[in-house]
Amino acid sequence: MTDTSSRPVPRVPRGFRDLFAPDLAARRRMIDVIRQVYERFGFEPLETPAMEYVDVLGKFLPESETPEGGIFAMRDDDREWIALRYDLTAPLSRVVSQSGADLPSPFRRYQIGPVWRREKPGPGRFREFYQCDFDTVGTASMAADAEACIVYADAFRALGLKTGDFRIRVNDRKVLNGVLDTAGLAPDSAPAGAAQRLTVLRAIDKIDRLGPAGVRELLGKGRLDESGDFTPGAGLDQAQAERIMAYVEGGDRGGDRAAVCAALRELVGQSPAGLEGVAELETIHALLDAAGVGGELVVVDPGVVRGLAYYTGPVFEVELTFEIVDEEGKRRPFGSVAGGGRYDDLVERFTGTKIPATGASIGVDRLQAALSASGRLADTRDAGPVVVTVFDKGRLADYQRMVTELRAAGIAAELYLGSGGLKKQFKYADRRASPVTVIAGGDEFDRGEVSLKDMALGRALTADVKDRDGWLKQPAQVTVPRSELVAKTRELIERARVPSP
Amino acid sequence: MTDTSSRPVPRVPRGFRDLFAPDLAARRRMIDVIRQVYERFGFEPLETPAMEYVDVLGKFLPESETPEGGIFAMRDDDREWIALRYDLTAPLSRVVSQSGADLPSPFRRYQIGPVWRREKPGPGRFREFYQCDFDTVGTASMAADAEACIVYADAFRALGLKTGDFRIRVNDRKVLNGVLDTAGLAPDSAPAGAAQRLTVLRAIDKIDRLGPAGVRELLGKGRLDESGDFTPGAGLDQAQAERIMAYVEGGDRGGDRAAVCAALRELVGQSPAGLEGVAELETIHALLDAAGVGGELVVVDPGVVRGLAYYTGPVFEVELTFEIVDEEGKRRPFGSVAGGGRYDDLVERFTGTKIPATGASIGVDRLQAALSASGRLADTRDAGPVVVTVFDKGRLADYQRMVTELRAAGIAAELYLGSGGLKKQFKYADRRASPVTVIAGGDEFDRGEVSLKDMALGRALTADVKDRDGWLKQPAQVTVPRSELVAKTRELIERARVPSP
Repeated sequence: MTDTSSRPVPRVPRGFRDLFAPDLAARRRMIDVIRQVYERFGFEPLETPAMEYVDVLGKFLPESETPEGGIFAMRDDDREWIALRYDLTAPLSRVVSQSGADLPSPFRRYQIGPVWRREKPGPGRFREFYQCDFDTVGTASMAADAEACIVYADAFRALGLKTGDFRIRVNDRKVLNGVLDTAGLAPDSAPAGAAQRLTVLRAIDKIDRLGPAGVRELLGKGRLDESGDFTPGAGLDQAQAERIMAYVEGGDRGGDRAAVCAALRELVGQSPAGLEGVAELETIHALLDAAGVGGELVVVDPGVVRGLAYYTGPVFEVELTFEIVDEEGKRRPFGSVAGGGRYDDLVERFTGTKIPATGASIGVDRLQAALSASGRLADTRDAGPVVVTVFDKGRLADYQRMVTELRAAGIAAELYLGSGGLKKQFKYADRRASPVTVIAGGDEFDRGEVSLKDMALGRALTADVKDRDGWLKQPAQVTVPRSELVAKTRELIERARVPSP
Repeated sequence: MTDTSSRPVPRVPRGFRDLFAPDLAARRRMIDVIRQVYERFGFEPLETPAMEYVDVLGKFLPESETPEGGIFAMRDDDREWIALRYDLTAPLSRVVSQSGADLPSPFRRYQIGPVWRREKPGPGRFREFYQCDFDTVGTASMAADAEACIVYADAFRALGLKTGDFRIRVNDRKVLNGVLDTAGLAPDSAPAGAAQRLTVLRAIDKIDRLGPAGVRELLGKGRLDESGDFTPGAGLDQAQAERIMAYVEGGDRGGDRAAVCAALRELVGQSPAGLEGVAELETIHALLDAAGVGGELVVVDPGVVRGLAYYTGPVFEVELTFEIVDEEGKRRPFGSVAGGGRYDDLVERFTGTKIPATGASIGVDRLQAALSASGRLADTRDAGPVVVTVFDKGRLADYQRMVTELRAAGIAAELYLGSGGLKKQFKYADRRASPVTVIAGGDEFDRGEVSLKDMALGRALTADVKDRDGWLKQPAQVTVPRSELVAKTRELIERARVPSP
């Protein structure tokens, strides 16, 4: 009927994907756990629109220098540019600027939802992905930053990760600024200083990918990569670069936070910013100790700087320490799956008034991929519905009664709605991971009975059975009075839940 | 610091909105209920991207004749048009065309998520709203259509609506086509016939808004509305129009589905399409009876046609029958909050092969607005977190220990992170709907004690208390040994849950 040439090709835009039941079930479970942790810490939900005005979003993407770069933008009816949100922090700043007087202060909110980035897609890199953010707006207290680390520690353990599977790394931008002060760089307040410091920051942020040699190049004249692209460097001399590398590689000292803080105090010399940053890290360390969160979970690591320009104080990151096999078949540590930091100037963009804030995010899709790739995500497929098979199409109303009774008892159940005989129906039930199928033909109806097949038991035997009589002889199948349909089905479902020895 | 003139104005695009904790808590509860019902019926989750190619979405919006009308569209990197999905049915058709071989057949999926429509926003009409869809693809069986009605009946009752608060109305497009056949209209297969029949359909769909007189005008020459806009009519003569009005106003006959079916059988005469439609309604009626779903819940109503062109058979709609006070202060029935139907030709657009399908949707935002406006949505605000107040900033680590203990016991708790004295902290706790606040100053620490304030009890007395000593004398406040912090807090929370007589 349809003209072939005018048929649309069924496909999704580049970097987008469909998610099906098993992945969705696993993600929902993860999100439920994360939400429960956030709520236990007193964060309340917020939902902002998918679309924001582009000037509201600002230009804070790490990879983009232009307002429309990296985002999905279009013109609204009023000709102003609107775009899909690329994170949940810019919308939060907008909400606080717009509705602050109606909100509790501090405002502690969480938001879980998709964000969209018009970046180059790749294996495991999508243009639409979920973020789970929690932020506290309206407090300068380091207790809020310490809490971000504690939220992480609780959330990742609640997600089933063991101590040692992940490490929360905390650092402070002020310490880096102090080190840059003592290395003789121009201050952040000078335009050239700000640009140079941002280049240094982004160089350090690449240490996991490029290693210390690559970072040294980016701190100096610049770096030529394998593809021939040249990235200009920060233009530091060798002594400056080495001073910074000594800082970056100060390491986590086996989780001895106090030792790292002491070493940093040496490195920042008399820099006021640097001393302030070290004091902040020491406060966070003390509060973590009070909460019983030790160096096996949270380390102070000068190598963590985060790529975003807007962080002003503590920054945090969660890395998974176990190795996975990547798309190219190589074993490698999975790396960072969560991060955040303090951004005391972001709300000021709108209001002109400083409103200190801190917060962090969990990238649940990346985390799910990591847990799945490392075998840490159990086979989380939910059991499917009981399938009431249709042996005699003239008895549809009778089958409908059965399915209604099962549902009324809280048992997920469906009537087989496709075509084909019992064999096809059992195959369908297998694909749906049905625990039990219900079978009733003329004989059963005459005797007031119904047959139930335990699909879990049955799956092993299915292959070599040819006919319906064969089915009926299997031990996985029982025939009971019609009145016992619900009770016997429930019994078989319960039996399937107990793992066989 | 920021240049005032360059400050963005914090605002959201027209037709978008922020949602805060109380609304989100209510919506989440509703969605959880709906999802449980869908899963009990054997539907499994699917999540498609926010963005689709425009040719994949097609042009099935009721109000729009052009591909870009009514949708938020932009060009992708490959210069092809992409847009935010405007419903969840077009993406489902795309998924089945693209991945059908990997899916169970029939494919029973639900999807809950936002859709975006670039239509004129108004009170209660947003450009971003949630839909909760469930569909069965790959079955021509009327059992699937009957089930859609049963899902509705179960879902709306599970949401707390009483029989009589809502009515599920079912009809069949084939019956309407049969009536149009007998009235002498050109067949659907003729281009002019299809256009005329669509005009008739849209006229009937407006009966709730325009009344019978308005529909009569639209069936005839056309209608001039109050603003002076003229809508061209279907051009039927009076006898044809009256025949159709007799059909439309055939009514639900107090829920006597068999009687309505019998009357429809008369009206369609010898029209094959009409007779097929009546037989479908009779099958649905019988299956509803088998499921114990009577005329008090589901009626056959010829007035229901649904505005979308793509429906091919049964169509359903849920209307709320109670009155609400609208934006203009008028009492009126709230109207339709859910609907759907059979669309046997939609997948064929992609594949050229007919894959019969049926499904329906619940508009959860509209439903929430209706329940809220009619007082049927209980005050669903969740209790907030326990707030550990900060009396002595030097004791932050001690307060951190308290909040950690409470959380470890599963109690939502937070450390007060703002500035200001106890009074301000209590005010904050009130805004957060905290059940209990924890207070500890020098005296408490010296004696190894902690004070707890029952905020629910305390709220009544707050106004005339001036100082901290005053607080401590109130009966709503108790002082207990520090070791009993968790147990006593839990006791006070439990007490607050029991409504006072």
